[in-house]
Amino acid sequence: MPQATTSERDDVPIPPAETQKRRPCVVIVGGGFGGLNAARSLRRAPVDVFLIDRHNHHLFQPLLYQVATAGLSADDIASPIREVVRHQQNVQVMLGEVTSIDRQAQMVRYEGGEVHYDFLVVAAGMQTNYFGNPQWEAQAPGLKTLRDALTCRRHILEVFEQAEREGEGSEGRGLLTFVVVGAGATGVETAGAIREIAYQVMVKDFRRIDPSRARVVLLDAGSRVLSSYDEELSDRARRDLEKMGVEVRLNAMVEAIDEEGVTVNGERIAARTVVWAAGVKGSPLAQTLNVELDRMGRVTVNPDLRMPQDDRVFVIGDLAHFESEDGQVLPGLAPVAVQQGKHVADNIKRAMEGRAMEPFSYWDRGKMATIGRAKAIAEIGNWKFGGLMAWLAWLFVHLLFLIGFRNRAFVLMGWIFAYVGMRRSARLIVDPPRERAGALNFWQGFGVDEVRAE
Amino acid sequence: MPQATTSERDDVPIPPAETQKRRPCVVIVGGGFGGLNAARSLRRAPVDVFLIDRHNHHLFQPLLYQVATAGLSADDIASPIREVVRHQQNVQVMLGEVTSIDRQAQMVRYEGGEVHYDFLVVAAGMQTNYFGNPQWEAQAPGLKTLRDALTCRRHILEVFEQAEREGEGSEGRGLLTFVVVGAGATGVETAGAIREIAYQVMVKDFRRIDPSRARVVLLDAGSRVLSSYDEELSDRARRDLEKMGVEVRLNAMVEAIDEEGVTVNGERIAARTVVWAAGVKGSPLAQTLNVELDRMGRVTVNPDLRMPQDDRVFVIGDLAHFESEDGQVLPGLAPVAVQQGKHVADNIKRAMEGRAMEPFSYWDRGKMATIGRAKAIAEIGNWKFGGLMAWLAWLFVHLLFLIGFRNRAFVLMGWIFAYVGMRRSARLIVDPPRERAGALNFWQGFGVDEVRAE
Repeated sequence: MPQATTSERDDVPIPPAETQKRRPCVVIVGGGFGGLNAARSLRRAPVDVFLIDRHNHHLFQPLLYQVATAGLSADDIASPIREVVRHQQNVQVMLGEVTSIDRQAQMVRYEGGEVHYDFLVVAAGMQTNYFGNPQWEAQAPGLKTLRDALTCRRHILEVFEQAEREGEGSEGRGLLTFVVVGAGATGVETAGAIREIAYQVMVKDFRRIDPSRARVVLLDAGSRVLSSYDEELSDRARRDLEKMGVEVRLNAMVEAIDEEGVTVNGERIAARTVVWAAGVKGSPLAQTLNVELDRMGRVTVNPDLRMPQDDRVFVIGDLAHFESEDGQVLPGLAPVAVQQGKHVADNIKRAMEGRAMEPFSYWDRGKMATIGRAKAIAEIGNWKFGGLMAWLAWLFVHLLFLIGFRNRAFVLMGWIFAYVGMRRSARLIVDPPRERAGALNFWQGFGVDEVRAE
Repeated sequence: MPQATTSERDDVPIPPAETQKRRPCVVIVGGGFGGLNAARSLRRAPVDVFLIDRHNHHLFQPLLYQVATAGLSADDIASPIREVVRHQQNVQVMLGEVTSIDRQAQMVRYEGGEVHYDFLVVAAGMQTNYFGNPQWEAQAPGLKTLRDALTCRRHILEVFEQAEREGEGSEGRGLLTFVVVGAGATGVETAGAIREIAYQVMVKDFRRIDPSRARVVLLDAGSRVLSSYDEELSDRARRDLEKMGVEVRLNAMVEAIDEEGVTVNGERIAARTVVWAAGVKGSPLAQTLNVELDRMGRVTVNPDLRMPQDDRVFVIGDLAHFESEDGQVLPGLAPVAVQQGKHVADNIKRAMEGRAMEPFSYWDRGKMATIGRAKAIAEIGNWKFGGLMAWLAWLFVHLLFLIGFRNRAFVLMGWIFAYVGMRRSARLIVDPPRERAGALNFWQGFGVDEVRAE
């Protein structure tokens, strides 16, 4: 697959020779916040962009927990990458799993082909970290991909159905006990949402069981929830969760997870549903860069976002270990990735004009986490607040940053139904699509889960 | 599972003795148009209704092809059955596959339990019929369930990605050839929609291939498309399809389907995608009724919708072989099922009041089929028309009959994006949710596909 075929398109099937002039090729691995913003910011640059992702969609991960808890449809929070960049003629999108990066040869290899780069932007993100207990994954899915979210949704809906089938008494076996491990933003949001769906939605729909008695237990090894927030806000979040009926257990070390439940600090909690939101680690792709990685499997980068070992390779987003001037490592948040994506594009443009690259600096516009309807916390500079106002700010900001008007409109409608109508729009148990026999089965290997299972 | 526990709910976990008085139990098998309308029409009747379905959702089947062609999200055309009847206190919904009906003992057996009936309404519908070639299913999914539609969607999206990966030349291997077998409403709608997505949507998103060159071939063994319509409308539909670029082949007998293509009338068509819309047959459940079935596996019923062999058993919807007074067998259409569902409820109420049951008669309000944007045909009494007006009527009627305001709002938005914005909102390739290890795996057996595979 010669790189020249990825040059600009002009509606003639085979481009005439003069358009095949060699322009520098920027290969971007990953269509998340970082990679996609890098690609879009290169739209006027005289380069060919080759954007590879193993999924055909950009995923708005901050709302993934709402898919997992049946509040939104998978289609609402994802946009086909091709559609996002459809009008940008210098981008070639490729669906495929990148298997290795060969810095010597300046090649990126993916299943089905390889591509040569002049500049490489690695924005491959993170995956769920079971901290040496990969066997827990089968019982306790993480929340990183749409597949994870749909697995979780399916499971939550099924246990309620099974409990209804068995009638009273099913509670004793943990059928209606939901354990969420990890009290960061994803864990807190998921625990709150499960409690809400049980208490506000399911309660009207079942006859033999009382879904409002469903237990939701939120565990964390640390001493507070949302520990990256101000201590006062952390406390407020914990109180909000407890008011909603979530049991919060801190300083809780998970020792075992199996089909029947969770063992924590020596105590057994019977639970059929466990959601793992306790940690992430770098994509295994980082290992093929042949450099030392940090404790979380991330690549340490220079102030200009390049690897110290390689002038042509940038690493951005969650996968980058970037130290600010104050010595803090930037957290794995969407705004960091967005800003780094734009910055990397600017640096590439600078390099092509023979100018020096500039150091990245993060403009921290604050952060927020939601706990439930009308409950959230926010930190914007020194301004720390919670409650309804924080929640409205959260809704507004998340709608604003969703890519594409289409998604915004659908998500807004989903929320109106969820928060005003007390319904959950996406409560379907759907059998997974069948794998077709024959030629296309090779596709199957492309999911993140197979990689994890290695 | 004693039937008494299915009596009305009063928010006390175990109902006090006085509410356990025995009321007649109406068991309804199937939550489609027939079953759901029967259940809702019994809301004021002094009966307990036990509604079993193998899916947790009611599916608006007439729009299923739009999910298969990425126009709508699965969540848009399905409503959780529990939610539809949440305020109807005399209904108990059960998710489960019915395995047999024992008319002697008046019992319905399902995986996980059994229930006694005083009246039984069998509304189990139809499944895809491969006419003695079950091996074709793996290559040519039908379009009866959400799972079918998602399988089809995934496949269509994947072949375009694979073609882009392989670049020019992939057309020769049939990668971008789509064969739809059966030119009834589903086949015509699917063929038109695939052609539209290729020509209007995909064409902007790919760089190496020209999606507008995708071939769509519509086959039918008969001599015209939409053969249940007036001949002039049939012709118009065929011309519309051909104008859109669909190749229509009539009098075409499919002789073989495999991974590489389809053999039809001795000729080979290389095609990686085949959709089977050629026929349906009765649910295998009908066979457990121990009566003779018609050629399509349907149960012949009396004018009052009961089986001639059993006073307590009604069969309605697609699964019923019902002859009108003019000797015509009613077709498997949603309006027939809806009207039969309501009628059966009325007959049960009459029986409980000691009155005679009344014969059913179908009020035919006409029928319509869509071919593409601004293209449709409609027959309303003697009024036969096509084009934009028929298409607008089609949109309006389908929106009107969608269950739940929520779905209507989402579908309307999806259409605005599709037909005005020329986008398709649901173009995600999502890996199927993982099956969890352990206790809940038994659930897996509940899909329609396992039954078919028998």
